[in-house]
Amino acid sequence: MIRFECDYTEGAHERILKRLLETNDEQTPGYGVDEHCEKARAYIKKACDSENADVHFLVGGTQTNTTVISSILRPHQGVIAANSGHIAVHETGAIEATGHKVLPLPSDDGKIRAEQVKELHDAHWNDGTFEHMVQPGMVYISQPTENGTLYTKSELEALSQVCRECGLPLFIDGARLGYGLVAVDNDASLADIAKLCDVFYIGGTKIGALMGEAVVIINDALKKDFRYMIKQKGGLLAKGRMLGIQFEALFENGLYYEISKHAVDMAMLIQTSLTKQGVQFLYHSTTNQQFPILPDRILKALNEKYTFSFWEKVDAAHSAVRFCTSWATKKDNVEMLIQDIKALQ
Amino acid sequence: MIRFECDYTEGAHERILKRLLETNDEQTPGYGVDEHCEKARAYIKKACDSENADVHFLVGGTQTNTTVISSILRPHQGVIAANSGHIAVHETGAIEATGHKVLPLPSDDGKIRAEQVKELHDAHWNDGTFEHMVQPGMVYISQPTENGTLYTKSELEALSQVCRECGLPLFIDGARLGYGLVAVDNDASLADIAKLCDVFYIGGTKIGALMGEAVVIINDALKKDFRYMIKQKGGLLAKGRMLGIQFEALFENGLYYEISKHAVDMAMLIQTSLTKQGVQFLYHSTTNQQFPILPDRILKALNEKYTFSFWEKVDAAHSAVRFCTSWATKKDNVEMLIQDIKALQ
Amino acid sequence: MIRFECDYTEGAHERILKRLLETNDEQTPGYGVDEHCEKARAYIKKACDSENADVHFLVGGTQTNTTVISSILRPHQGVIAANSGHIAVHETGAIEATGHKVLPLPSDDGKIRAEQVKELHDAHWNDGTFEHMVQPGMVYISQPTENGTLYTKSELEALSQVCRECGLPLFIDGARLGYGLVAVDNDASLADIAKLCDVFYIGGTKIGALMGEAVVIINDALKKDFRYMIKQKGGLLAKGRMLGIQFEALFENGLYYEISKHAVDMAMLIQTSLTKQGVQFLYHSTTNQQFPILPDRILKALNEKYTFSFWEKVDAAHSAVRFCTSWATKKDNVEMLIQDIKALQ
Amino acid sequence: MIRFECDYTEGAHERILKRLLETNDEQTPGYGVDEHCEKARAYIKKACDSENADVHFLVGGTQTNTTVISSILRPHQGVIAANSGHIAVHETGAIEATGHKVLPLPSDDGKIRAEQVKELHDAHWNDGTFEHMVQPGMVYISQPTENGTLYTKSELEALSQVCRECGLPLFIDGARLGYGLVAVDNDASLADIAKLCDVFYIGGTKIGALMGEAVVIINDALKKDFRYMIKQKGGLLAKGRMLGIQFEALFENGLYYEISKHAVDMAMLIQTSLTKQGVQFLYHSTTNQQFPILPDRILKALNEKYTFSFWEKVDAAHSAVRFCTSWATKKDNVEMLIQDIKALQ
Repeated sequence: MIRFECDYTEGAHERILKRLLETNDEQTPGYGVDEHCEKARAYIKKACDSENADVHFLVGGTQTNTTVISSILRPHQGVIAANSGHIAVHETGAIEATGHKVLPLPSDDGKIRAEQVKELHDAHWNDGTFEHMVQPGMVYISQPTENGTLYTKSELEALSQVCRECGLPLFIDGARLGYGLVAVDNDASLADIAKLCDVFYIGGTKIGALMGEAVVIINDALKKDFRYMIKQKGGLLAKGRMLGIQFEALFENGLYYEISKHAVDMAMLIQTSLTKQGVQFLYHSTTNQQFPILPDRILKALNEKYTFSFWEKVDAAHSAVRFCTSWATKKDNVEMLIQDIKALQ
Repeated sequence: MIRFECDYTEGAHERILKRLLETNDEQTPGYGVDEHCEKARAYIKKACDSENADVHFLVGGTQTNTTVISSILRPHQGVIAANSGHIAVHETGAIEATGHKVLPLPSDDGKIRAEQVKELHDAHWNDGTFEHMVQPGMVYISQPTENGTLYTKSELEALSQVCRECGLPLFIDGARLGYGLVAVDNDASLADIAKLCDVFYIGGTKIGALMGEAVVIINDALKKDFRYMIKQKGGLLAKGRMLGIQFEALFENGLYYEISKHAVDMAMLIQTSLTKQGVQFLYHSTTNQQFPILPDRILKALNEKYTFSFWEKVDAAHSAVRFCTSWATKKDNVEMLIQDIKALQ
Repeated sequence: MIRFECDYTEGAHERILKRLLETNDEQTPGYGVDEHCEKARAYIKKACDSENADVHFLVGGTQTNTTVISSILRPHQGVIAANSGHIAVHETGAIEATGHKVLPLPSDDGKIRAEQVKELHDAHWNDGTFEHMVQPGMVYISQPTENGTLYTKSELEALSQVCRECGLPLFIDGARLGYGLVAVDNDASLADIAKLCDVFYIGGTKIGALMGEAVVIINDALKKDFRYMIKQKGGLLAKGRMLGIQFEALFENGLYYEISKHAVDMAMLIQTSLTKQGVQFLYHSTTNQQFPILPDRILKALNEKYTFSFWEKVDAAHSAVRFCTSWATKKDNVEMLIQDIKALQ
Repeated sequence: MIRFECDYTEGAHERILKRLLETNDEQTPGYGVDEHCEKARAYIKKACDSENADVHFLVGGTQTNTTVISSILRPHQGVIAANSGHIAVHETGAIEATGHKVLPLPSDDGKIRAEQVKELHDAHWNDGTFEHMVQPGMVYISQPTENGTLYTKSELEALSQVCRECGLPLFIDGARLGYGLVAVDNDASLADIAKLCDVFYIGGTKIGALMGEAVVIINDALKKDFRYMIKQKGGLLAKGRMLGIQFEALFENGLYYEISKHAVDMAMLIQTSLTKQGVQFLYHSTTNQQFPILPDRILKALNEKYTFSFWEKVDAAHSAVRFCTSWATKKDNVEMLIQDIKALQ
């Protein structure tokens, strides 16, 4: 089988593995206070143009979202998110398990708008019975979203402004951040993101690392005691250097961007080629996830050779599916997929 | 600095790294349902002589303890543990964060006794106001303990019997299980442990792996929906194969035992040599942690060259400290340490 | 001001107060094990035709919902409810605070349908990634609903059957149960309800008591250790007899039905009279809550003399509002309200 | 049976019942924003000499402790308490159920000392691995304690000073506060308490009310959004005026002190008389709980006629038991008890 069902089907980028080998015999202290973590932190702060940021390394996405969100909210507060947001749908209630409601906003494309946040905030505070309802306490968005779409810089600015007016910290889930940063139509740089939000994370698991997410805390008020939270939520890796070494490799010479670009190139190759074949897409994605709408007959045939994710039925004979590319996707496989679809039309 | 402060100062055993390299380009499904995880499960079940066990791979110890314990207890129940147990002291209240009290039993050496469990259980149920108190819901022990000590097989049998009589599932934290299994005076095999408890885990992080713990669920009643719990608590690694591959390497040809034995040999070398020098030890440990009592003057000098953990003041001029060995400990370093201590006496 | 904004604007029914006075000097044990509680339990079990039920007295509705729901669900499970359900909207995230997601189903009238439950259940179990999502663990409905509407007996039967097929305990919030039981078009008796669900509660706070809700647990599997849960969630009243005495008074001679009927008569008087005036209603309610749609001009004028709840804007010049009647509503006030609205038309 | 097993065996003081009757037909808004609650707040603030305090009414003690503590702590913090503290022993893990560990300090008499708090605080912050342990976040004490003992004003001052130095809010559980305030050797007034702590509560349930506790928040930083917390934890009584009316009655003319004094007089009568008989006491209590040590033979005989609480075995033939008096205790019963014990000696 040739796998396109997600962006974590292979191991790690070879330069990361090489670095793990080279450093294997070094003795370091545990829990992320070693020199590799320190170097990785320095590289990331520089890449974000945020010398005062705090950078922490965690193992996975659900863990990271849970740790960040539960460290910010008071018990009676909830987190605003798109109804399709990862925390709202695909984390088995991890946020609720820490006591907090996810306050969902309707979204067709995975994005939420500044006005929606403002409206929800105002509705809460203008209603006389506010203490009977969960208080909105922060905002969660994903860049890119779970649908492969991207916030523009001006959309992020609008969200950022509303959040600051409303006193709502803005948290950006960057599980696939690299794949957004290098998209052809992206106009929000890493430094922009760091300026516009209060805390975000840079995903490693889906972009070349064995595992690992780098949390970047910009807002001083959110920095206090964050290591306690990581430990309590099970994210303080004993061999913390494993995370440091990987992010060091990803950020010292631009590897993160380089391999992200490869994935996006492969995705755009799928998009361009299928579009030429007359295929429609469910979402306008310029990142590594593509959601073509194909006849169920073709999908059935493809299933013999490729893995991909079913997304939704579009009509009696068509479905939208998701193809993911990654840093590890082989161009030959992409071209074969395109040819096979063409042949099946 | 030469590091003895813990058993996770290096990367991973070279055979594990080799395997990660060899398999790096394979495409596998995520979340632990790949072939490597399946093979590792088969090896582990065989090693435990427990074909019907469920085996799950998690990333770290605190996460594993939290996931297992919160999957077993009802909201009004607590977990019985030694007052020195890892969950009672060194997990930042992770168990409490899932809503459960740790019910501490006094212990001088890290072990709890069957009679203590029985007593606590009876005290709860004989007191007329039981619903005003946390109900004991399960028992947690570590093998070896946080003090390096080992339960004998007959002690485990007694605990197991009391637990079954009282309806309390018995959970064994095996973060350092290998270092116990190969101890010269150990008489409880992996199969014995599997027979005597309801659920336990085999630690990888401290015994040769980059990270990873293998949970083995023996009791059918505890198996249901455990993957939901792993996901919710942030332990379902996207690239789950990373854990499978490591445990495959550790258990296919006895590597786990082999490297555990090296660590214990190194620890016993410290113990034997220091004993000859007249040094006393705080605990009777035949595993990879040694707790010698040394003059503060000597400790201060050693601190220039070695790292180790301060444990407790013993008298005005002496302290107990902890030296850990591991699969990666170099014999030269151990011998140098012994010589240096001798020279300082 | 004449108050119609809720059904708890007065103290308690005089027969309840009288009974509190008569029994005031009695000495009883605490925490609900006194004779008054025992008698009240017997009356309620008889009224429910459920001799084997467990009956517990709690203080308020949010507390009751939280205690019941958190005692049933495992950590990875959520509770299905109408998106307008009290637990989904008006309990400040109390359910989430115990770790569980409320799984909302769309509803126009406060009711959910058996097919909706079946669909959500099937969608969860047919999706290959179920462990990434909250597992549906039980169903919550209100009778009458927060919109004053009533489930028919056949609707309850259909829900009950689906719940049993799906292994989902059915919990009925009866904060206003009396007002539903006596509605002219109600065909589901207290005994029917007890037969069709697993656990429900009979509201006292809104029907004549100072405070208090009687939880009736039908399903044996849900009975275990419930008093621990009450205590932990802060609902085990020290002077538990206060609750027993009140439910004794409400259920020994049919007082509960008698005063519920008065409230519903008053509500129907409002409905019939306003309907004659040509007023439309937002929901078809035959219980004690009425939701007329009135010109904003008239509402503004009424506000000088009456309290009632704003519900929603219907168009530029009209809003739906809620008038509640209760056991304590005076007929004179109702007639004055009707006349005042008529005069303002 | 004549009951001495607790201080909530009767209903409410007659002046409270009278007031409930007089106000029964008044129509008021719900949830504690009515005029009676406002008046009660004013009386209490005056009694505490704390015009800027926030006063909230909750239903019971466990609920109050849980609401206050969980509103103050961040997720990684715990609450310091005596190992005999109510929250540590008799609340079914209610604090842990909100995610927080109770950090117990050893205590022989129910009191903790300023130095103990300082030590625990320093031990946490001086240990290099602090993020692996629960961070002390606040201090909980009871006045009087669960053993009937009282903090002196200077002890409270010392605790208060240490708490402020360490940044630990001090919370005083005053479930039996009245019985402490009127004790002959008490030198800490209500105003002193308000000055020395950050938040405390004045118990009503055990001192003449049907139910109810008045939380007084002194520290501005702890006031924000407290009503949300009350609602979420199930303590926002719909008919909130029931609490307001009772505290109004208790505090408008000194009823709270008057009835507290009666209880303490009765308790001291027991103490003085039994002391004359040569009886020893387990604790030095000048409040409404007395802990005489009596021959088991005598206790068995008393059990036929009186209820009281077994406390602990003292030796093979003697046990300590608890006799509680209250606002409702009849002098005749106390004298009969004393005579009966004398006769049995």
